[in-house]
Amino acid sequence: MVSILNHKEAMIDHYINGILSAHPHLAKCDGQPIIYNKQQDPKLIPLLSGGGSGHEPSHIGFVGDGMLSAAVYGDIFTPPKSQEILAALRFLNKGKGVFVIIKNFEADIQEFKKAIQLARKEGIPVKYVISHDDISVEPKQNFQPRHRGLAGTILLHKILGEAARNGANLEDLEKIAFDIATEIATIGFATKSARLPQTEKPFFHLADNYISYGIGIHGEEGYRTVPFTSSEHLAVEITNKLQITFHWQEKEAFILLVNNLGTTTDLEQAIFLNDIKQLLDLEGLDIPFIKNGKYMTSLDMSGISVTLCRLKNPQWLTYLKAPTQAFAW
Amino acid sequence: MVSILNHKEAMIDHYINGILSAHPHLAKCDGQPIIYNKQQDPKLIPLLSGGGSGHEPSHIGFVGDGMLSAAVYGDIFTPPKSQEILAALRFLNKGKGVFVIIKNFEADIQEFKKAIQLARKEGIPVKYVISHDDISVEPKQNFQPRHRGLAGTILLHKILGEAARNGANLEDLEKIAFDIATEIATIGFATKSARLPQTEKPFFHLADNYISYGIGIHGEEGYRTVPFTSSEHLAVEITNKLQITFHWQEKEAFILLVNNLGTTTDLEQAIFLNDIKQLLDLEGLDIPFIKNGKYMTSLDMSGISVTLCRLKNPQWLTYLKAPTQAFAW
Repeated sequence: MVSILNHKEAMIDHYINGILSAHPHLAKCDGQPIIYNKQQDPKLIPLLSGGGSGHEPSHIGFVGDGMLSAAVYGDIFTPPKSQEILAALRFLNKGKGVFVIIKNFEADIQEFKKAIQLARKEGIPVKYVISHDDISVEPKQNFQPRHRGLAGTILLHKILGEAARNGANLEDLEKIAFDIATEIATIGFATKSARLPQTEKPFFHLADNYISYGIGIHGEEGYRTVPFTSSEHLAVEITNKLQITFHWQEKEAFILLVNNLGTTTDLEQAIFLNDIKQLLDLEGLDIPFIKNGKYMTSLDMSGISVTLCRLKNPQWLTYLKAPTQAFAW
Repeated sequence: MVSILNHKEAMIDHYINGILSAHPHLAKCDGQPIIYNKQQDPKLIPLLSGGGSGHEPSHIGFVGDGMLSAAVYGDIFTPPKSQEILAALRFLNKGKGVFVIIKNFEADIQEFKKAIQLARKEGIPVKYVISHDDISVEPKQNFQPRHRGLAGTILLHKILGEAARNGANLEDLEKIAFDIATEIATIGFATKSARLPQTEKPFFHLADNYISYGIGIHGEEGYRTVPFTSSEHLAVEITNKLQITFHWQEKEAFILLVNNLGTTTDLEQAIFLNDIKQLLDLEGLDIPFIKNGKYMTSLDMSGISVTLCRLKNPQWLTYLKAPTQAFAW
């Protein structure tokens, strides 16, 4: 199996250089793993997110007006170091503070928490939200919900980014963030495990024609592995899990985001989207906005995740529909 | 290997339904494989393109203001029938005619030609261009250039679509099309062959860790199969072939389009883009615009194609940069 790269150690640097050449609104902070929006309006509250690499186009694909002001990145599946996050907070702060979006993984929280504490000591106001949209369960721990931060995080980037562009202050952003974060749920499946570049070994074993439900984005196995039958069956299982989470009522409005976890074809993804949409229609839900694309991947894993966000506030829809030059939205 | 679908026969219909649910500016003509832009301004000359399925997001991903007015599609790797193309021409014509962009494949030309002849007999003015950007060669025929229509076709969609939005008439469009079509060249490589959905058999054999240069988008083998060494080596071979085609001078301006042929990861694609960009920089070329994404695929093939377009007219750049709601641009 070929991994198109040169030196494994320089892989992320080369990726970043490629992206920067194609997207002139982005720039890199010298000597730091920080990509920022050159056109960021200094009067607005800046938004920072980030995490390990291997989830391309996350997070730098969401840096742009009305989304993130910067993204800080680590090595493959490894969060950036607290000192790097601190450098990003210092760089972004123009006096009114910085809002941070963190994915719920132990290692991420540890580094971001340390950086936020240090920044606050320096007098930089920082508020944050922890994205915990995963509703899959841990089979080894009595099927406890995992609450990891997954593709639903992108909805936080967009809604909060547009709120900031519309003049929200740090407290406003915190309030909106908490309102949204509890209304987002994500669950997915894999048809093929990811593997690290230039290795042959998959993170988990999936027999031929099997799929795994509730996989993570760092090679974590799912909660159930079964033979593949049809796209519709996948959609039924996923929709059931979402229904159990939301206990929705007929005519309730939801945002739907269907995310390519890496190397699923566009053909398959839209077929699956069609099955999900039909089931949600049968439930009588109102789906005024659908995002269908590649937002948060796990290297070369094949699979799809589904995110629903209960539209508690119609303003969120306006914010989602606003244009941005972030290249992966 | 899992193909996420329900019934193979209904695969394309299900795909189309999924796409329509996510993109409200698109609609389907009843009983015809035609997707059109609901917001198309009837005062403008409409643009039609299309071809076989299996190249998602082509071509319906390029239907929108300032790009295609409609796309007509066939089954996997099979062009739409002449009667279907004729239906699209009739539907689009508002009295001033229709401009058509055809990819250079024998079967496509046959169907489109028949449809255009029939439309003209009915009094519908039709002009067209044949996209022939492929510069790879046929090893079985004395290495003759193949001139197939590949990802460079997308640049025709965008530049001509924006020209039409700016009021170009049918004759203007034909002139611009001929100007551009001869200035576009595309060549790519595969790291994995495509296979038909729900089959295991690849179209061509590629041994482990081998790559193939000059592959087609319908499972056609390349002109040379060699072991993979590095992304940089791939970029050198591709850049050399482009140089031989263009005989460029230092400081000449080119548009660069890097296209994911299916299931290559974003990480690998931007690493390869970086290598291509560095080589073009070394050649002293001016690259004022880069598109990096997934535009014209070949099912689940892994690989990347590179398109250059000599910027003979600075207006083309303005047209390329204009916004469009076409979802795959």
